[in-house]
Amino acid sequence: MINKLVSEIKKKNAPIVVGLDPMLNYVPKHIQEKAFAQHGETLEGAAEAIWQFNKAIVDATYDLIPAVKPQIAMYEQFGIPGLVSYKKTIDYCKEKGLVVIGDIKRGDIGSTSAAYAVGHLGKVQVGSKSYAGFDEDFATVNPYLGSDGVKPFIDVCKEEKKGIFVLVKTSNPSSGEFQDKEVEGRPLYELVGEMVSKWGEDCMGDDYSYVGCVVGATYPEMGKVLRKLMPKTYILVPGYGAQGGTAKDLKPYFNEDGLGAIVNSSRGIIAAYKQDAYSKFGEENFADASREAVINMKNDINSIF
Amino acid sequence: MINKLVSEIKKKNAPIVVGLDPMLNYVPKHIQEKAFAQHGETLEGAAEAIWQFNKAIVDATYDLIPAVKPQIAMYEQFGIPGLVSYKKTIDYCKEKGLVVIGDIKRGDIGSTSAAYAVGHLGKVQVGSKSYAGFDEDFATVNPYLGSDGVKPFIDVCKEEKKGIFVLVKTSNPSSGEFQDKEVEGRPLYELVGEMVSKWGEDCMGDDYSYVGCVVGATYPEMGKVLRKLMPKTYILVPGYGAQGGTAKDLKPYFNEDGLGAIVNSSRGIIAAYKQDAYSKFGEENFADASREAVINMKNDINSIF
Repeated sequence: MINKLVSEIKKKNAPIVVGLDPMLNYVPKHIQEKAFAQHGETLEGAAEAIWQFNKAIVDATYDLIPAVKPQIAMYEQFGIPGLVSYKKTIDYCKEKGLVVIGDIKRGDIGSTSAAYAVGHLGKVQVGSKSYAGFDEDFATVNPYLGSDGVKPFIDVCKEEKKGIFVLVKTSNPSSGEFQDKEVEGRPLYELVGEMVSKWGEDCMGDDYSYVGCVVGATYPEMGKVLRKLMPKTYILVPGYGAQGGTAKDLKPYFNEDGLGAIVNSSRGIIAAYKQDAYSKFGEENFADASREAVINMKNDINSIF
Repeated sequence: MINKLVSEIKKKNAPIVVGLDPMLNYVPKHIQEKAFAQHGETLEGAAEAIWQFNKAIVDATYDLIPAVKPQIAMYEQFGIPGLVSYKKTIDYCKEKGLVVIGDIKRGDIGSTSAAYAVGHLGKVQVGSKSYAGFDEDFATVNPYLGSDGVKPFIDVCKEEKKGIFVLVKTSNPSSGEFQDKEVEGRPLYELVGEMVSKWGEDCMGDDYSYVGCVVGATYPEMGKVLRKLMPKTYILVPGYGAQGGTAKDLKPYFNEDGLGAIVNSSRGIIAAYKQDAYSKFGEENFADASREAVINMKNDINSIF
């Protein structure tokens, strides 16, 4: 799957991923009203609204982008109906040929991580049959519990030719409280980065490992250090746009070959129609605004090479 | 909710929690066969089997225990149908008067953590209405992203009178890889413990904070240090029994008042019928075996006081 991700990035000339993180207040009124007319103001109604919103954005952008990153929390907040929309979104994006990165940030002790890995990337055995529960292509993983919490994901990735992105340095303001603490002469995130690199050695695609990492766009100096530390590791970079990261901050995350990183934007794309720059589209044409925002993001990021 | 947890622990004289972590191979054949007869060997069939298994164990033990801790990964591995059984389990346990600790180990950047918090402990707004998605009483939270990933949970807890347990030192063998690293002259888990204690100061129930923590039974020396560091913090202690923690290891986790900790056992209770010690019950009477295992665990733990 890392080979597919890299080849789609090259083909579409777009090292970007659209974060499908639909807050209900991003969803235009006409879509909400239609969903509520069918299901009432219920969890089912909200779930239908975010699914229709996603579908329209995917339809308007899938030919331009290699991948999407649905943030499961935004669906989980609507309980079971929300998770049904999460699964619909995954399936629809895969039909459209997109690589799906499930932003699930799971991580637990060994046997429990194995259950998450099976549920999201693998297949679970039920009697004589086996089934994929969610079936993302990649998942994000939290490393706080150490190797035996991460390895079950890697085992499933090996079987299924899928991949993970391990949190190393996150984009939020307080990420430094623990991640930046000095450990054995370097910050904790570097130690985690070294481990990611080590885990990834045994998991190589053609040029890059399918054990990737997450490093926020908001910390470019750290991105530079981590890039050198992990030359074969794909870096998923959140925090561009709405969170404050700019294109010029992103260069250090890439290798000389223009590969090695994939930059996420969520709000900046899916709620583009709410920005002044895209107001000409109007709320009805929100998906066209998202398409233009994707084109602009692609040009912005490609300008650094 | 921390007051309810403490009062139920006192009333039932049982500082224990039963981990409802149903692997399909724990579920007796007769339950699996009945579920598969209804739904086939499908995700729905597996989900029905684990739900019926849980229900029987809850029916056989609820009068003895203050709380249950369903591990969401064990449900999530069966996709949407599995999560439907997770929700059924939560609702049923609450009907039975049990405190429900959702072992979800979520944690993300601010707005995303807020979505998890709303989905699991709070209510989400849909138009003019609001709904609880999963509605656990407590949730476990991963601290790797720092304060702004944890605070959204605390905010919801304040509104809803609920609580969290933040991972400080986990029970698994490789937990030390990052958690034990020396940071500013002490291990990282102590720093996290200090932060938990600080977050909890502003969140006091009658005697204990509703911001608790997780410290594995497998590291009693660390439990001792953390107990002193966080006198008002309830400690959720996994790792007793199957993972190797014994009653004598547990004393340091408690305060002088015999409170301050709640010890989890999962496999040791729910799959008791598979152990030699409980083989007299037979597979058909698995729930009676679980009841005896609860009584034995309660006596074992109370023997340390």
